[in-house]
Amino acid sequence: MELTHIDKSGRPKMVDVSGKPDTVRSAVAKGYVVMKPETLQMIKEGRMKKGDVLSVAQVAGIMAAKRTPEIVPMCHNINLTGVEMDFRVLEDKNAVAVQAVVRSVGKTGVEMEALTAVSAACLAIYDMCKAVDKSMVIKNIQLVEKTGGKSGDFKREEEVPWEG
Amino acid sequence: MELTHIDKSGRPKMVDVSGKPDTVRSAVAKGYVVMKPETLQMIKEGRMKKGDVLSVAQVAGIMAAKRTPEIVPMCHNINLTGVEMDFRVLEDKNAVAVQAVVRSVGKTGVEMEALTAVSAACLAIYDMCKAVDKSMVIKNIQLVEKTGGKSGDFKREEEVPWEG
Amino acid sequence: MELTHIDKSGRPKMVDVSGKPDTVRSAVAKGYVVMKPETLQMIKEGRMKKGDVLSVAQVAGIMAAKRTPEIVPMCHNINLTGVEMDFRVLEDKNAVAVQAVVRSVGKTGVEMEALTAVSAACLAIYDMCKAVDKSMVIKNIQLVEKTGGKSGDFKREEEVPWEG
Amino acid sequence: MELTHIDKSGRPKMVDVSGKPDTVRSAVAKGYVVMKPETLQMIKEGRMKKGDVLSVAQVAGIMAAKRTPEIVPMCHNINLTGVEMDFRVLEDKNAVAVQAVVRSVGKTGVEMEALTAVSAACLAIYDMCKAVDKSMVIKNIQLVEKTGGKSGDFKREEEVPWEG
Amino acid sequence: MELTHIDKSGRPKMVDVSGKPDTVRSAVAKGYVVMKPETLQMIKEGRMKKGDVLSVAQVAGIMAAKRTPEIVPMCHNINLTGVEMDFRVLEDKNAVAVQAVVRSVGKTGVEMEALTAVSAACLAIYDMCKAVDKSMVIKNIQLVEKTGGKSGDFKREEEVPWEG
Amino acid sequence: MELTHIDKSGRPKMVDVSGKPDTVRSAVAKGYVVMKPETLQMIKEGRMKKGDVLSVAQVAGIMAAKRTPEIVPMCHNINLTGVEMDFRVLEDKNAVAVQAVVRSVGKTGVEMEALTAVSAACLAIYDMCKAVDKSMVIKNIQLVEKTGGKSGDFKREEEVPWEG
Repeated sequence: MELTHIDKSGRPKMVDVSGKPDTVRSAVAKGYVVMKPETLQMIKEGRMKKGDVLSVAQVAGIMAAKRTPEIVPMCHNINLTGVEMDFRVLEDKNAVAVQAVVRSVGKTGVEMEALTAVSAACLAIYDMCKAVDKSMVIKNIQLVEKTGGKSGDFKREEEVPWEG
Repeated sequence: MELTHIDKSGRPKMVDVSGKPDTVRSAVAKGYVVMKPETLQMIKEGRMKKGDVLSVAQVAGIMAAKRTPEIVPMCHNINLTGVEMDFRVLEDKNAVAVQAVVRSVGKTGVEMEALTAVSAACLAIYDMCKAVDKSMVIKNIQLVEKTGGKSGDFKREEEVPWEG
Repeated sequence: MELTHIDKSGRPKMVDVSGKPDTVRSAVAKGYVVMKPETLQMIKEGRMKKGDVLSVAQVAGIMAAKRTPEIVPMCHNINLTGVEMDFRVLEDKNAVAVQAVVRSVGKTGVEMEALTAVSAACLAIYDMCKAVDKSMVIKNIQLVEKTGGKSGDFKREEEVPWEG
Repeated sequence: MELTHIDKSGRPKMVDVSGKPDTVRSAVAKGYVVMKPETLQMIKEGRMKKGDVLSVAQVAGIMAAKRTPEIVPMCHNINLTGVEMDFRVLEDKNAVAVQAVVRSVGKTGVEMEALTAVSAACLAIYDMCKAVDKSMVIKNIQLVEKTGGKSGDFKREEEVPWEG
Repeated sequence: MELTHIDKSGRPKMVDVSGKPDTVRSAVAKGYVVMKPETLQMIKEGRMKKGDVLSVAQVAGIMAAKRTPEIVPMCHNINLTGVEMDFRVLEDKNAVAVQAVVRSVGKTGVEMEALTAVSAACLAIYDMCKAVDKSMVIKNIQLVEKTGGKSGDFKREEEVPWEG
Repeated sequence: MELTHIDKSGRPKMVDVSGKPDTVRSAVAKGYVVMKPETLQMIKEGRMKKGDVLSVAQVAGIMAAKRTPEIVPMCHNINLTGVEMDFRVLEDKNAVAVQAVVRSVGKTGVEMEALTAVSAACLAIYDMCKAVDKSMVIKNIQLVEKTGGKSGDFKREEEVPWEG
């Protein structure tokens, strides 16, 4: 029986972490939604017709963190031990800053879970406001820091601000 | 029986679109992942240990588009009639540009589906490369244009480029 | 070839509705969470450590409505055109009343979606408060009315109140 | 740069359990579906057109238990080590009693998983029978007992029966 | 700005069906699970410790049909109007035959939904019996026929039987 | 109060594994998609209109492995530590061979995850090629070997080849 083996290089996989020890992990990610001044005012004053923007974004971020392995194909499915979202209204910048802190105890880091939580929260903010402002931009989603695991801790030397 | 009605204002809802006609809809969204020059080279040359980056991002974007109503809480669940992803390597900018085109025939627009597809593809790119570069930044996820529906067409006056 | 045909009677199916016309559908469902007086006070005063109870329950109900066909095995998967949740604090009854209104245009009713939304919202209320009160009871989840479809409208003759 | 920090109180989170030890957990929950006498007879005699009611409810409960963190927003995603459903036909009460026993080894309790399993099984019973009886009521979903974890065991002093 | 356009050929997409009319669709798929004679006897006599094998496979197939677009990446998400599963015990062949009939009204065929339903039912049969027989083989999952749509009807000239 | 206890025998459950130790687990599964010679040529030459067949099947298999407990009802939800897919084009047999290797550290085996990964990859291959060949057959999905756990290792005595 003649075989032609399709070259495996380049074929993606979910890398084997069976041999790694369970350690405490955390990751912090950040992102921004930049909008028109009047859109920001409507968020602050709770005047969006679809409802309170940040409370929906909060839940969106937390629920998305748990579903990261369904959204990011090569991500391991893991048990998260904590997710916190934080929002800041940057008044003179016409932006909302979104931050997620994710924790786990396991064999892989939680960077993707934190970045996914921020992404989903930003998407939810866009969705809640898009009836009045379709020109919003989601900016500078980035890993701020991570701790735990063999590859060691990471701390971004300089955060990319909303203008970046 | 004494009732205290919790004020409904601010309580989010999935707005009623029962009365809207079915029309053909499309939306185009865009975003960028900015990285180190050597990371971009590894993507281009197919040297990432986890596999071919853009083919995974491609599938991630398409699958996420279909799951938008599970990620964005107030989004209607709808049937998509087409999703296409496109990637460009911006050589001298150290960035990958991601574009999604989403189509549907129905009562609501597909902006969120296009933005979610771009977000998921950007997250997948980050995931595939994070072993060599944790400082990547996802930048300027934006709606480029939409067509169909009562609110009319939208075309962004000026796209926000990767540097924006 | 000898065949033994396992008797089909009793084997569940998702019944064929291909021939039914698309009509506008709505359903209203209701339910209650009964708790200790001090638990209700903590909800009202926003003192639960896990966060604002009703805003989480609101989102839980709307998201669960969309996922009804994944939770209720023989339910058709359909597109919802609107979901609204409403909460009332029944002060002298130590209960929260939960109501869901679900709308769709299609071949099947949305009773299950409304009942699922109420169930998920009640579960979310329990979850947010269980650190202080594990004795809460979810009571009298019921269809209040439905409109649309061949089987005609339904209106419950007498609602089952929280005590029922 | 001027910041307005949206007050964090009231913003929900998935509380951090990273520091908790893994212990064996169990939870037992119960609920009832009350219906017309002739509906109960049809269930018992396997005459529902949609199929055998309790075998579908059985699977619905077990599958929903596994999906609890997708239904209940602030629930941790955990690995369940066992789920059992039990049904009793309360002949002279025109009700079906539903019970779920859920087990896990981990950092959080499984109360929500047991309550979600019961809720989904009750919804499935309603769905299978609604063609003949839309007036059914889901009653008294409650935690009966839990074991394991820092907060200690819980045993409901007095179960709320179907009439409660 | 210099661009290197990654060649689009080969990049998968969810093909655009916006312009297709809604038509009634059906598809029938079939497959087999071949096992040891004593395994088949245990299924028939309801002696598997995990529970009644075919009732679980029945529900598994129907629920998986609805989730096809989450399992098969380039599949359109559509609304199914009916799913029926049928099982036959092939006594002298030591096999269970699994058949799924899926219906929809829409722009795309339901072949993948029928094949996915059969695959999931076969996997569920394996799972329910694997404690006593790990050597079972899932055989000859195939499309038997389809109707509706522009590409016309399809009927397999000769079914591939269990031995095939 | 008179009770009629529905006989529990036959009612499926997710069996209790709380008392089992965590051990390293692996499973290897295999399957085949048999097709027309010209279909195989189109796969090899990357001429399918829907995109590169095997890269989509690769991602489909890995993502489905993670979702096994949602597809196979009585499967425990577990954390996978690795998934690898491998494809071989069997030139003179007009078939593609699909293999999955799945790893985990836990209380249950990963046979179902490996078989589900192979099934989903085969379904994805069918989907990508069905516009040109609806007569493809998915053949001989089988467990090749497993290691770890109380029940000991398993190695299929003789693999069932594509013709089997």
